[in-house]
Amino acid sequence: MTATKDNSKAGAGRTIISVDAMGGDQGPATVVAGISLSARINPDIGFILHGPRAVLEKLVAKRKNLGSRCEIRDAAEVVSMEDKPSQVVRQGRNTSMWSALESVRNGEATVCVSCGNTGALMLMSIIRLRKLNGVYRPAIAVMWPSPNPQGYNIMLDGGADIRADAKDLAQYALMGTSYARNGFGLTRPRVGLLNVGTEEHKGRSELKEAHDLIAANARGGDFEFVGFVEGRDLPGTKCDVIVTDGFTGNVALKTAEGIAKFISDELRQAFRYSLLSKLASVLAYTSLNRLKKRVDPRRANGGVFLGLNGTVVKSHGAADATGVSSAVKLAYELAQSGFSDKLAARVASATLHDQDDTSEELTNGESE
Amino acid sequence: MTATKDNSKAGAGRTIISVDAMGGDQGPATVVAGISLSARINPDIGFILHGPRAVLEKLVAKRKNLGSRCEIRDAAEVVSMEDKPSQVVRQGRNTSMWSALESVRNGEATVCVSCGNTGALMLMSIIRLRKLNGVYRPAIAVMWPSPNPQGYNIMLDGGADIRADAKDLAQYALMGTSYARNGFGLTRPRVGLLNVGTEEHKGRSELKEAHDLIAANARGGDFEFVGFVEGRDLPGTKCDVIVTDGFTGNVALKTAEGIAKFISDELRQAFRYSLLSKLASVLAYTSLNRLKKRVDPRRANGGVFLGLNGTVVKSHGAADATGVSSAVKLAYELAQSGFSDKLAARVASATLHDQDDTSEELTNGESE
Repeated sequence: MTATKDNSKAGAGRTIISVDAMGGDQGPATVVAGISLSARINPDIGFILHGPRAVLEKLVAKRKNLGSRCEIRDAAEVVSMEDKPSQVVRQGRNTSMWSALESVRNGEATVCVSCGNTGALMLMSIIRLRKLNGVYRPAIAVMWPSPNPQGYNIMLDGGADIRADAKDLAQYALMGTSYARNGFGLTRPRVGLLNVGTEEHKGRSELKEAHDLIAANARGGDFEFVGFVEGRDLPGTKCDVIVTDGFTGNVALKTAEGIAKFISDELRQAFRYSLLSKLASVLAYTSLNRLKKRVDPRRANGGVFLGLNGTVVKSHGAADATGVSSAVKLAYELAQSGFSDKLAARVASATLHDQDDTSEELTNGESE
Repeated sequence: MTATKDNSKAGAGRTIISVDAMGGDQGPATVVAGISLSARINPDIGFILHGPRAVLEKLVAKRKNLGSRCEIRDAAEVVSMEDKPSQVVRQGRNTSMWSALESVRNGEATVCVSCGNTGALMLMSIIRLRKLNGVYRPAIAVMWPSPNPQGYNIMLDGGADIRADAKDLAQYALMGTSYARNGFGLTRPRVGLLNVGTEEHKGRSELKEAHDLIAANARGGDFEFVGFVEGRDLPGTKCDVIVTDGFTGNVALKTAEGIAKFISDELRQAFRYSLLSKLASVLAYTSLNRLKKRVDPRRANGGVFLGLNGTVVKSHGAADATGVSSAVKLAYELAQSGFSDKLAARVASATLHDQDDTSEELTNGESE
């Protein structure tokens, strides 16, 4: 990756983020509003924006702070939420998504941000950016609010692949801790493996195998392995990184969304109930707003694709300007920390370790 | 089952619930307080209470309303939360859990309630009560709060078995709808199959197979099949019964618990923040209490074991008196509706249907 060398194309000395302007539920105006918000806060950021030139030029012209910091790349077609990933990959050369990944592929940017179709973005990322050497399955790392000091826990896989065997899960542990170090500054992240109980005899056999693999790699990977954790630990304090397959991870994520929405709807109802409670909600306005910010998925917006040559931040499809801006912020921080290269080095060193050493290490499973 | 015939043993004309007094985190005093609460509300209920006689006699003597309505069965040993299910089944003859199931087995009661070790209770129930004819895997049905008119959705399996193939999932649909009819009075429940997306091409292959099996059985089972649903639909309005394997179901359940706790902790923090917000919390007290009741897991306490000869209600291990009482209420309603027999008939008729008909029906998978 030679991202920093090409920065001159979109603004000297700046960290360039490649942004897919299309494919989100809210359309390109929201994406442009989001990057404008980021540009206002952060003077060191620049953008390559991908989509139909005529549409984007109009939108960017309205945002004065974007003029000198945003280069537009024309891409006529759009990947819709309904498109099948396999089709998009075959016929998607002229889409904004393809173009946005191309800027990471050719080194103009190290990180790409898109609000589009997750399945299509993942498959296209795998095909265009390619998996890191030694990575079996890339994963989506997502953030959960938690009372931990860093304010968030990381869970992977959030839904890149519905299956994961023991060696995939062990690799998720390595990738997740690298992300925790570079995204949250945790020096020695605590890793938990999601199961239906914390006792070692519980759960599926591949989880017991993964348990042993991860334990064997904890020292080399410089993380602490806390063993099996349960669903309640996702927003908890037992660990910082939670490892699971993409099916279970995706169900947990959407369940949490559902419960949060249910409670907030009920809370709104509760405050509407009587005159007294309406008055209370006025008095509690600031406090409730603080809570909302804390739990708001828009603030923690951005699943990160791990295990590729380059980093892709997937923003929520329904993200508004605040959501897009928060995904851009995450992309910027990862680009700044040199995360892509560090993750590659971490995965490579685990593989090398195995070549020198035939003890119970991560890549033992490779021969399977 | 001839439960009603033997009612004279513990109180004439009453519906008898068999209650394991031991094994919960709060001890037998809480269980006795809980059944006393139920007895106060419901004059038609009687109990057979299982545990060490000396301990229970003292506790029951303190509750005047239990005197004539609670028979004590001496059982010296207790199944602890740490005991391995397989061991308990071999060596557990003298436990209160075994004794409590025995009262259902011999027809003194139709429903058993226990706060004890879930795994042990499930395995012991399978061995002592035996699976219903034609049932491959029994399941735990749990309740989710939802904005649906009945106030709750039913999910199964909540964690009886970490695996389920297509025919198990189709059978969960039948058992869940029977429970929804008898527990909630829904005439034609809507069933959804939990997946990572609602598109038909998504998810694991066994889920696609289950999708077709459930669809083929919807008419015969007298339910509406809404197809794939997602985690966010568990507390949603899309369907009344959600079908999934016990691993995924258990993770979803504990994730929801974790998120609800996280939000309620944050809410408490938010109200403590300033003088104004403290005042607001006083004014909103009634409304917040109403919300708490609505979301409170103690009010929806009780997973129900389905697919056995007799019904077992598993109360939360940490249940307090309110929780125990709510589990007893559920047990009473199911006993009253003749649920055990109706479920058996439902499963039997689905099996019979297959014997007459070789089309795409539920039990086609039996030969596998």
